[in-house]
Amino acid sequence: MKQHFTVIHTDGQARLGTLSLPQGDVATPVFMPVGTVGTMKALHHRRLEELDYRLILANTYHLYLRPGLELLEKMGGLPQFSTWDRNFLTDSGGFQFFSLSKFAKFTEEGVKFSSHIDGSKHFFTPEKAIQAQNIIGSHIKMVLDVCTPPNITEKKAYQAHRTTVDWAKRCQKEWQASGEQGLLFGITQGNFYKDLRKLSIEELAALDLPGYAIGGLSVGEEKQVFEEFVHYSTPLLPANKPRYVMGIGTPDYILQAVEAGVDMFDCVYPTRVARNGAAMSFDGLLSLKNERYALDNNPIDPDCTCSACQRYSKSYLRHLIKAKEINALTLLTDHNLTFMKRFMNEVRASIKENRFALYKQAFMDRYYQSSHKES
Amino acid sequence: MKQHFTVIHTDGQARLGTLSLPQGDVATPVFMPVGTVGTMKALHHRRLEELDYRLILANTYHLYLRPGLELLEKMGGLPQFSTWDRNFLTDSGGFQFFSLSKFAKFTEEGVKFSSHIDGSKHFFTPEKAIQAQNIIGSHIKMVLDVCTPPNITEKKAYQAHRTTVDWAKRCQKEWQASGEQGLLFGITQGNFYKDLRKLSIEELAALDLPGYAIGGLSVGEEKQVFEEFVHYSTPLLPANKPRYVMGIGTPDYILQAVEAGVDMFDCVYPTRVARNGAAMSFDGLLSLKNERYALDNNPIDPDCTCSACQRYSKSYLRHLIKAKEINALTLLTDHNLTFMKRFMNEVRASIKENRFALYKQAFMDRYYQSSHKES
Repeated sequence: MKQHFTVIHTDGQARLGTLSLPQGDVATPVFMPVGTVGTMKALHHRRLEELDYRLILANTYHLYLRPGLELLEKMGGLPQFSTWDRNFLTDSGGFQFFSLSKFAKFTEEGVKFSSHIDGSKHFFTPEKAIQAQNIIGSHIKMVLDVCTPPNITEKKAYQAHRTTVDWAKRCQKEWQASGEQGLLFGITQGNFYKDLRKLSIEELAALDLPGYAIGGLSVGEEKQVFEEFVHYSTPLLPANKPRYVMGIGTPDYILQAVEAGVDMFDCVYPTRVARNGAAMSFDGLLSLKNERYALDNNPIDPDCTCSACQRYSKSYLRHLIKAKEINALTLLTDHNLTFMKRFMNEVRASIKENRFALYKQAFMDRYYQSSHKES
Repeated sequence: MKQHFTVIHTDGQARLGTLSLPQGDVATPVFMPVGTVGTMKALHHRRLEELDYRLILANTYHLYLRPGLELLEKMGGLPQFSTWDRNFLTDSGGFQFFSLSKFAKFTEEGVKFSSHIDGSKHFFTPEKAIQAQNIIGSHIKMVLDVCTPPNITEKKAYQAHRTTVDWAKRCQKEWQASGEQGLLFGITQGNFYKDLRKLSIEELAALDLPGYAIGGLSVGEEKQVFEEFVHYSTPLLPANKPRYVMGIGTPDYILQAVEAGVDMFDCVYPTRVARNGAAMSFDGLLSLKNERYALDNNPIDPDCTCSACQRYSKSYLRHLIKAKEINALTLLTDHNLTFMKRFMNEVRASIKENRFALYKQAFMDRYYQSSHKES
């Protein structure tokens, strides 16, 4: 197999790398924005291209239900259907079965679930997770896993771990049988038990998959617990494979993960808070609904190249938010994904120049301690 | 006063003109899209500029309530606040008091109303309507009028007419006293009584205002009634002043109005139906939710330059609409306002080349008779 990941440079545990994917190289550490149903919410593909995003997420669970695999297959897969000709990563549905668990029932064989849209009944298996991702045509595929919440017993966590490893093997087999389309990543679990985390990583690493995620973090645990487990788990993962922490998108979590040696992360956070009227900035998260911005004639950030900052004042943006205008959603989504791109560019530059620790501290001081900080 | 309107050419009653406004000339007949609270719903100003829209609407009533005149005054008026440096036309609020009439009570002095947002009580007068539009900073201002529904008695219609003329005089006085900022247009009323329509036009024309609207049409009457009254009223309006029919935006109504000699019209229709999943095209209105487009790999119109047609299939757009994605709203709004621009360009070209009647017939045949027509 072609070498698909190269570590170019390290600074402490933090690492700079290149992920070589079918639709172009991706510089790591990379933040991947989430386009749930094959579109980025409130932002056109053209702007993602302008911002040089090269790898975005889509959700197997959501696409499976709508527009459905039959349509996607007829339309030639998601890249062709959605016109995004760069790279896609699809999660397997495991996280959605977890977060929409009132609709899902796990067995050893797979997951029975009801559609959150129309209540229709479905049964998903590891094999189907791979088949679905093959039809979608994603470039990085995730195994189907069993994600668990904090505060479950070690026995339950162990059972979930066993199923996760078993399903990973079945996914790998299906992936191999279908010609190894794209890269298949394993998802390590183990809840918040270190022995289980270690065991999960060891058993999954033995499968020699092209990449590994740390799943089951950022699922409601305390921030210190997240930090402890990301720092514990990451060094245990194979050093020559890309490492991915699923579901993180705030700067503090990303900086912790990068510090531990993580290469990839995704989250709806930047786009979701945008739709709630919050702008990310190097001076912290600005809740533009706040009265303090009512007469503020300045852009969110004069150095930002987004469509909001290039033209509009915080006062005007606040007016759009309060009037529930759709343009508020599109402008702030553009802003936050522009911010994330600038932020990750800075992170990579700091690793390259062996000053990541200093960068992290300076960023954190300004972002979380700034006088502009919102309470 | 500088000549602000020139008729360049006529073809039957249809006329080609130039409206000279403070922020640039506008070719007529012109369709003016509606940006209710100082933004076009689901479309950025940049795209309106690309499409060469030079005159857009904003609503005095809505801006008065949110963000409020105090803020607009502090921010230097709506053009500066919203960054739109082309022309604005503001309606006076008269139509909103009519359409939100459960909140409004008319007296000879003015209108008492409750905010549809928070229920707060307000009192609006003709003088306040002008003062508000001065603060907003619009380039065409409308007098405060009394709009009435179909099927009221002639007596009631006459009373509304009398108040409308009285208020127009008060508006004109206030406009003159405040230095004639922008152009003030009168609004003729008279309900669906021809004598009253004629009387309203005569009394308002005597004020020698810079332009005149035909108000109180497209308020629920039958289409034939609209046609009858637009053809009856338009030739009675001063020929050397711009003529404006308020609240029309479907191609058939626009073509009728142009045929009668109308120069200007506005409506939320193209942007509103876009947000409901309908695309305007020369082959008629396409309801993209329709199952027939599920596997349609073609754009709405391959000749269209909008962000939807330049990239996406009807199948994908349908998926976005069904998944309630914000991008569906922005893409279809761009499409429909691109369509309206192309349509009006064609209308003006046909007048210039003395073939408007033929154009109207051919357009109507294709738009309303096409096999693509949705029922």
